[in-house]
Amino acid sequence: MERWLDELEPKLITWRRHFHKYPEVGWTEYVTTAKIVEELERLGFTLYIGKDAVDSSSRSGVPNAEQLEEAELRAKEHNVPKALIEKMSGGHTGVVARLDTGRKGPHTALRFDIDALPIFEATEDHFPKAEGFQSIHDGFMHACGHDGHTSIGLGVAHYLYSHQDELSGEFTLLFQPAEEGSRGAKAMVEKGWLSNVDHFLSGHIGISDEEVGLVAATTEGFLATTKFDITFKGKASHAGAKPEEGKNALLSAANFSQHAYAIPRHSAGDTRVNIGTLEAGSGRNVTADHAFLRGESRGETKELDRYMFAHIKQIAQASADLYGTTVEIEEVGQGTTAECDHVWIERLEEVAQKYDTINKVLPKLAIGASEDVTHMMRSVKEDGGEVTYMIFGTPLKEGHHHPQFDYEENVLRVGVLAVTGLLENLHCKD
Amino acid sequence: MERWLDELEPKLITWRRHFHKYPEVGWTEYVTTAKIVEELERLGFTLYIGKDAVDSSSRSGVPNAEQLEEAELRAKEHNVPKALIEKMSGGHTGVVARLDTGRKGPHTALRFDIDALPIFEATEDHFPKAEGFQSIHDGFMHACGHDGHTSIGLGVAHYLYSHQDELSGEFTLLFQPAEEGSRGAKAMVEKGWLSNVDHFLSGHIGISDEEVGLVAATTEGFLATTKFDITFKGKASHAGAKPEEGKNALLSAANFSQHAYAIPRHSAGDTRVNIGTLEAGSGRNVTADHAFLRGESRGETKELDRYMFAHIKQIAQASADLYGTTVEIEEVGQGTTAECDHVWIERLEEVAQKYDTINKVLPKLAIGASEDVTHMMRSVKEDGGEVTYMIFGTPLKEGHHHPQFDYEENVLRVGVLAVTGLLENLHCKD
Amino acid sequence: MERWLDELEPKLITWRRHFHKYPEVGWTEYVTTAKIVEELERLGFTLYIGKDAVDSSSRSGVPNAEQLEEAELRAKEHNVPKALIEKMSGGHTGVVARLDTGRKGPHTALRFDIDALPIFEATEDHFPKAEGFQSIHDGFMHACGHDGHTSIGLGVAHYLYSHQDELSGEFTLLFQPAEEGSRGAKAMVEKGWLSNVDHFLSGHIGISDEEVGLVAATTEGFLATTKFDITFKGKASHAGAKPEEGKNALLSAANFSQHAYAIPRHSAGDTRVNIGTLEAGSGRNVTADHAFLRGESRGETKELDRYMFAHIKQIAQASADLYGTTVEIEEVGQGTTAECDHVWIERLEEVAQKYDTINKVLPKLAIGASEDVTHMMRSVKEDGGEVTYMIFGTPLKEGHHHPQFDYEENVLRVGVLAVTGLLENLHCKD
Amino acid sequence: MERWLDELEPKLITWRRHFHKYPEVGWTEYVTTAKIVEELERLGFTLYIGKDAVDSSSRSGVPNAEQLEEAELRAKEHNVPKALIEKMSGGHTGVVARLDTGRKGPHTALRFDIDALPIFEATEDHFPKAEGFQSIHDGFMHACGHDGHTSIGLGVAHYLYSHQDELSGEFTLLFQPAEEGSRGAKAMVEKGWLSNVDHFLSGHIGISDEEVGLVAATTEGFLATTKFDITFKGKASHAGAKPEEGKNALLSAANFSQHAYAIPRHSAGDTRVNIGTLEAGSGRNVTADHAFLRGESRGETKELDRYMFAHIKQIAQASADLYGTTVEIEEVGQGTTAECDHVWIERLEEVAQKYDTINKVLPKLAIGASEDVTHMMRSVKEDGGEVTYMIFGTPLKEGHHHPQFDYEENVLRVGVLAVTGLLENLHCKD
Repeated sequence: MERWLDELEPKLITWRRHFHKYPEVGWTEYVTTAKIVEELERLGFTLYIGKDAVDSSSRSGVPNAEQLEEAELRAKEHNVPKALIEKMSGGHTGVVARLDTGRKGPHTALRFDIDALPIFEATEDHFPKAEGFQSIHDGFMHACGHDGHTSIGLGVAHYLYSHQDELSGEFTLLFQPAEEGSRGAKAMVEKGWLSNVDHFLSGHIGISDEEVGLVAATTEGFLATTKFDITFKGKASHAGAKPEEGKNALLSAANFSQHAYAIPRHSAGDTRVNIGTLEAGSGRNVTADHAFLRGESRGETKELDRYMFAHIKQIAQASADLYGTTVEIEEVGQGTTAECDHVWIERLEEVAQKYDTINKVLPKLAIGASEDVTHMMRSVKEDGGEVTYMIFGTPLKEGHHHPQFDYEENVLRVGVLAVTGLLENLHCKD
Repeated sequence: MERWLDELEPKLITWRRHFHKYPEVGWTEYVTTAKIVEELERLGFTLYIGKDAVDSSSRSGVPNAEQLEEAELRAKEHNVPKALIEKMSGGHTGVVARLDTGRKGPHTALRFDIDALPIFEATEDHFPKAEGFQSIHDGFMHACGHDGHTSIGLGVAHYLYSHQDELSGEFTLLFQPAEEGSRGAKAMVEKGWLSNVDHFLSGHIGISDEEVGLVAATTEGFLATTKFDITFKGKASHAGAKPEEGKNALLSAANFSQHAYAIPRHSAGDTRVNIGTLEAGSGRNVTADHAFLRGESRGETKELDRYMFAHIKQIAQASADLYGTTVEIEEVGQGTTAECDHVWIERLEEVAQKYDTINKVLPKLAIGASEDVTHMMRSVKEDGGEVTYMIFGTPLKEGHHHPQFDYEENVLRVGVLAVTGLLENLHCKD
Repeated sequence: MERWLDELEPKLITWRRHFHKYPEVGWTEYVTTAKIVEELERLGFTLYIGKDAVDSSSRSGVPNAEQLEEAELRAKEHNVPKALIEKMSGGHTGVVARLDTGRKGPHTALRFDIDALPIFEATEDHFPKAEGFQSIHDGFMHACGHDGHTSIGLGVAHYLYSHQDELSGEFTLLFQPAEEGSRGAKAMVEKGWLSNVDHFLSGHIGISDEEVGLVAATTEGFLATTKFDITFKGKASHAGAKPEEGKNALLSAANFSQHAYAIPRHSAGDTRVNIGTLEAGSGRNVTADHAFLRGESRGETKELDRYMFAHIKQIAQASADLYGTTVEIEEVGQGTTAECDHVWIERLEEVAQKYDTINKVLPKLAIGASEDVTHMMRSVKEDGGEVTYMIFGTPLKEGHHHPQFDYEENVLRVGVLAVTGLLENLHCKD
Repeated sequence: MERWLDELEPKLITWRRHFHKYPEVGWTEYVTTAKIVEELERLGFTLYIGKDAVDSSSRSGVPNAEQLEEAELRAKEHNVPKALIEKMSGGHTGVVARLDTGRKGPHTALRFDIDALPIFEATEDHFPKAEGFQSIHDGFMHACGHDGHTSIGLGVAHYLYSHQDELSGEFTLLFQPAEEGSRGAKAMVEKGWLSNVDHFLSGHIGISDEEVGLVAATTEGFLATTKFDITFKGKASHAGAKPEEGKNALLSAANFSQHAYAIPRHSAGDTRVNIGTLEAGSGRNVTADHAFLRGESRGETKELDRYMFAHIKQIAQASADLYGTTVEIEEVGQGTTAECDHVWIERLEEVAQKYDTINKVLPKLAIGASEDVTHMMRSVKEDGGEVTYMIFGTPLKEGHHHPQFDYEENVLRVGVLAVTGLLENLHCKD
C-alpha cells in the first residue's frame, strides 16, 4: 500500500491544485463535477449524475436562475461537454460512483465534499499564489479544504479500481455538492444512497499542532445548525428633504445583527450565531428601503439550535417594528448532529500499526462545528450501519474560511491511507 | 410666447419620456448626453463635450473602471456614435452649449441637471408604466425629475434658437452630470463656465399643494452636505469552530449606522444624516471581514454640516475599536449653501402678469435640501452676478427619490416659460 | 426708580443667595414657599396657599408619598411653621399674591418660577461655593436661575408695596412651583388665576454675549414637549447558571435609549429627544428584571412633538419585544407653544430710554426650549390679554442645567427694572 | 444520628426562617452574625469575630461608609450588643468557630455562607409570605438559600457540641460573609484559616428533579469570574436648548451593555457575561453626565474569563469614545475554579448506606456557576488537603436569584446529615 501511495501522491497534488484553481460554490460545481466524472469514467465506475445523483426538490439554498445560467455559461467556456451540462442543468451538480465487486461482502459508502466558498483568496504570502495554482475565479476560494477532499476521493477511487480483485462487497462514492451552508447532503440522502449501507466513512482536513500524520478516528461535538435568509422591506424617501417619511430597512438590519449576537448563552451547552452578509440600500441620499442578510445559528443539540433560532425570529420581528419595516425569514439550510461509532478507533489503530503514513491516532476529537455529513451519518445509523467522520491533521497557516487558509499537501496521502487502510480491513476478500 | 409654447409642449413631453426611459446615474450619462447633443447640434449651438465641458480632476465620486466600461458598452448598444463615446470616455459626460447673439448685452448662464438614481422603479399603479415609458434600465430611475429638467433645457434651447434675432448678449447652457451626490457642479465651475456671468438661472420640479402653475421665484435653506464612503476591515474566521478569532466588520458597520443617526440635534439649525447603503461580509458561516457604507451629512450651514461630519468620524473610529476592526473614511462629495438674489422676485412677478401659464408666484420657498447648484451660484456671485434657483410647483404622487415619484407633465411648460420669460425681460434687444 | 433700585439691590442678592442655598425640586418647595410667604405677608398682600393656589388634580409629576414626607420632615427641621406645612401638605407648594389698588385700571399677572433641579452642584471654581452660599441640599441645585426669578418676584412685590399709591388696577403675582418638567403651570391655570388678565409678564435669566443690561422684549421658538416615564419589566434569573431563562429589562432600556435618539429628523422643523435617567437591575449576577427611564420629546410645533412621541412609543414597544419584556409608558408632563405679543417691544424700548439699567433692547429672541409658562400665556391670550416672556441677558459661566451654571448677580436689578418699568407705564394712576 | 436529627429538625427550620426574615447583603451581615455568635457561644466554641475572622484589606466590594453606618444603625435597632457591633464595625462581619477535641486526629474545615441578595421578595403565591417569615428588610431577600446554609452550619455545630466526646481531631467552622459577588472567601483565606486543613467540606442547596434526599457528592464546572464596576463620565447640557453640548454617559452605558452581551462565544468552552445594574443621569431634561454599571464575566477556565474581561475593557473604552465620555473600570471581585477530590464519592456513598435521610448519591454534578468557595478549596489543596463541595437536592419553585425562589425545608436535615455523616466517618475516636 505504501508503495502504491508513493506513485499516487503526485497525482493527488495535481488534482488538488486543479480543483483549487477553479473553485465553485454550492450547486454551481459544474466544472468540478465534470473533472471528477472524467477521472471516474476511466476507472469503470457506474456513474450517477444530475437528477440521478441528487433529489432535486430536497436541495436547499439553490442559487437563482441568473446565477445558475452564469455558472453554466462559464462551464461551457471551460469546455465542459454540452451533454454533461444539460444533465446538471439547474444546479444538479455532484456525482455518485458505484462499484460492485460481485463478491459477497459489506456495503461501504464514502463521502467527499466538493464545493468552495465565496471568499477572495489572499494574494500575498500565500502558497497557492507562489506555486501558481491560486483561484482564477475572482471572489471564490477553496478555503475549507474541499479541494483536498475531492482529491482524496479520486485517490480512493483509484485504489478501488486497482485493488478490486482483492476486495469483496460494494462501494458507493458520494461526491457531494453544497456542503457549505448544510445544503447538499439531504438531497443525496433523499435519493436513497445511504440506505442499506454497512459502513460509512468521511473526513476533513483539519488542524493539528503536530506534524502531518495524525488522524482522529472519530469526532464528536457536531453542532446542529439552521441557515436563514432575512429580508427587511422599508420605505424610501429623500434623506435630506423628507427624512421623516422613510422607513429605514438598513437600520432594522443593523439592529437585528447586533442583537442576534447578544442572545443569552445557554446553560445546557454550546451555541453559535453568525450574520455572515448584509446588503442594504440603493442610493447614498435615499433612506434604505430594503436589506438582505444571510445568517446561521448553531447548537450543541437540536434543542439548543432551536433556542437560538426562536430568538432570531423574535429579534427580527422586533427589529422590523422598531423602524416600521416588514420582515421575512426563510430557512435555507438545516444541519443536525450525529455520533460516530467508537468501533472505528480500534480499527484505525490497526491500520496505523500497519502503515507508517499514520504516526498517531487520536481516539476522539471535539470539533464544535456543523457538518452536513451528519444527515448521511444519521441515515446510515438508522439502518444499523457503523459510521465515522475522521480528521486528517495538518498544521494550518490560518484557520478554515480565512483568505490565507492553507494546509500541507502531504496530508492528502494520509487521508487516502486512512480510508483505504480501513477498506482493506473491512473488504479483504478472504 | 404662449402660442409658441403650445407648439413646443408635445415635444417637451416626448423628450421627457425619452430621457425617463433610459436613466443613467452620475458620470455614466452617455446615452443621455448623446441625445442632448443630437438636439442641440441641429440648433446651431457651439457645443463643448467631454474634457472640454468638465474639469476632469474636479469630478468626484466617479464610478470605477469596470462600471464605466459597462456604461460605455451599453452606449454602443444604444447606437451612440463612436466618436462621441470616445470624447466622453472615462466618465466625462454632460455638455455645454454656447450662443452669442453678437449683440452687446448681458451674459446669462442656465443650468439643467441630467442624471438619474439607482432606484428600482415602481411597476404598479405608476403613470410611466401605464404610458409605456418606464425605465428599461433595471435598478435605475429618474426619481428626482431630472428627466424633466433636461427636457426644459432643450425647450429653452429651442426658444433661444427661434428667438435669437430678438435677443442681445450671450447664453451658456450647462447640461450638468452627477448632481446626485453633489459631484458634478464643481467640475463645470472649475472649467470656468461660471466666470463673468451676469445672470444665473436654474430650478427644480417640486411639490405644491396647488395645481400646476405656481413658481417659487427664489429658494432658501439649502443644506451644506458632505458625502462619504466608509470601509471597515476585520478578520474572517469560521463562525462555528473559531468565533473568538474573528473581528466582525459587519458589526462595526451596524453599530456605526445606528449611532450616526443618533448624533445630537443642534440648537443652531437643521442637520441631517443618512447611511444610504451598506454591504458587508462574504459567506454565511464566515465572520464578516469587510464592510462598505455610503453616507452623507447635511447642515443648514457649513458649520452644522462639519459638526455632523466630525461626529461621524468619531463614531466610525469608535465603532472600529468596538470590534477590533480598522476603518477608512473618504470624503467623496461636498455641497455648500448659497443665497438667491431677491431681485428675481419682482422680475418673475412681471413675467407672471404677462403670461397665464404662471398663475401664482411664491417669493421664497425654504427647501431644506442640498443642491449641487450652489457651487455655481457662489461662483457667479463672487463675480457680482445675480442668481436664482426656482421651484416649479406640481402635485407629486410620492416624494422625490421614491419608486413611485411622478409629476404632472404640464409643469414642463411652466418651467420653460419661467426661464424664457425672464430671458425675454433681460435680453430684449432694445 | 433707579434710586429705589439702589436700595433694593442688596436685598435682591441676599434673597437670591438664600434661595440658592436650599434648592427644592418641583412640588417639594416647602422651605422656599415659606420664605416667600414670610416676605409677602409683611407687605400686606392677600396670599393664596396650598390648594387655594394650585388645582390639586391638575398637577402632574407629583413625587411619591415617601419623597413628600421626607420633604415635609426637612421643612420641619428648617423651622417652617407647622400650620403652613399642613396647608401645603401632599405637595401643594407655591403661592399666589394679590394686590388690588382699589382704583380702576388693568389687571396684570406676573409669574416667577421657584423650583430647582436634581443636580449635584460644582464644588470647585464656582462662585456660590467661594461666597459660601452653595447648595446645602446634596444632589440638588438651582442650576436654571429660578433662585433669581424668585428674588426678582420679591423685588417686584416690594415695588408694588412701596408704590401702590401711585398705581391703579390689580396685580396677581404667581410664584409657580414645578416648572422643570412642565408640571406646574397648568395647576395654576386650572385654578383660574389667568382668567380676565389684561397683561401677562414673565421672563428668564439667560445668556448674552454682552454685558448685563440687555433685555429681549419678546421670545419666540418655544418647543412643545412631552415628558414621559417608561418602565420595562422582565424576568430575573441567575446570570451564571441560567442565563437563558432571564428576560433582560436593562437591555430593553438600553436599546430603547439608543434608538430614541435616532428618530429621523423632521423636515418641518426642530425636534428634540432626551433620556435623562435610567435605572435598571438589582444585583450584579442577576438578569435585570426591571428598568425605569425618564425622558422627554420636544418639537417646534405640537405636531412635531407628537411625531417624536409616536416614534418613542413604537420604539419602546419594539424594545420590549426584542427581549420578551413588557413595557408601560406614562405621560407625566406636557408643554405647549405660545406667541408673545409684539406690542411689548415698543413698550420695553420706552422703559429702556427712561432708565439706564437697561442698555439694550432686543426685539425678539429665539429660545429653542420648552417653558411651562406657555400654558399661562395661552390662557391669557384666549381672554384677549397681551403677553410677553422676556430674557434678561447676562454672561453665563456654563449653560443652564450645568453643575457650574452661574450668572452675574446685577442681572437681578435688570429683571426687576424691566418688569416694574413696564408696570409703571401700564398702571400709572393718571 | 437519625434520632438526634428528628430532634434537631424543628430548630433547623426555626433558624432558617429567622435568617430569612432579616436578609443582609455582603459585609453588612451584622444582625445575622450576631445571631450566629449568640448560638455558638452557648455551645462553647472558641469564636473569632471582626478583624480576627477576616483579613480587613483582603475584602473586596465593601459598601461605602454611609451604607455601613446605616447597617450598623439597623443592627442597633435589632438589639445587637454594642460591643459586638464595635468589633464588626466597618464591615468586618462573619465569624469563625473553633473546636479542638484534644485528641489526635484530622483537622476538618467547614464553610457556610451567610449573605443575602438585593432583590425584592415576591409577595404573592410565596411560601415565606404565607408562613409569615418573608423578608422584613425591603429590597433584600435570601434568594440563594444561604439562610439554609447558615442553619445547616448551626446544626453541624450542635452535632459537634453534643458528640464531642466521641470525636477526635479539630474543627474549624467558617461562617463566611459576602459570597455573592465572590468577595468574602479570600478575606478568610488570607487570615490563614485554610492552612493545614486535612478535609474541607461545603455545599449548596440546589435543584433536583427528584424528591428531597438526593446529594451530589462532588461538583465540577465551576466558572472563573470577574466582578467589575464601570463608571462613565460625560457632560451635562440642557437637552432642549443645547443638545449638541452634552456628552451622553447614559448612551455610553447603553451601548456598552448591548455589546458586552455580544462578545463572540468561544470555542474553548463556556463563557458568561451579565450587566446586572445600570444607573444613569440626574434630570429628565439634562443630558446624562454620569452612568454606573455593575457587571460580571465568567468562563469555564481562568483564560476564558480573561478573554471575556479583555473584551469588556475594549468595549467600555470604545463606548466612551463613541460619545466623547470617559470611563473607569474597577475589578471588585474575583472567583476562580477548583476541583473536588473524587475520594468523597465513596465516602458519601457509605454515609448514604448507613442513613435513610440520603436516598440517592450523585457522584458528580456540573454546576456551571461561580462560587467563592473555590478560593478556600484551592488553599486547602495547596497544603495537600482533600476537598468537596456538595449539592443538597430539592425541588425549587423558581431558580436561584428569583423573587419566588423557595426550597423544601426538609433539605436542611439532608444537608446536616451529609456533613455530620462524613465527619463521623473521618473523626471517629477509635
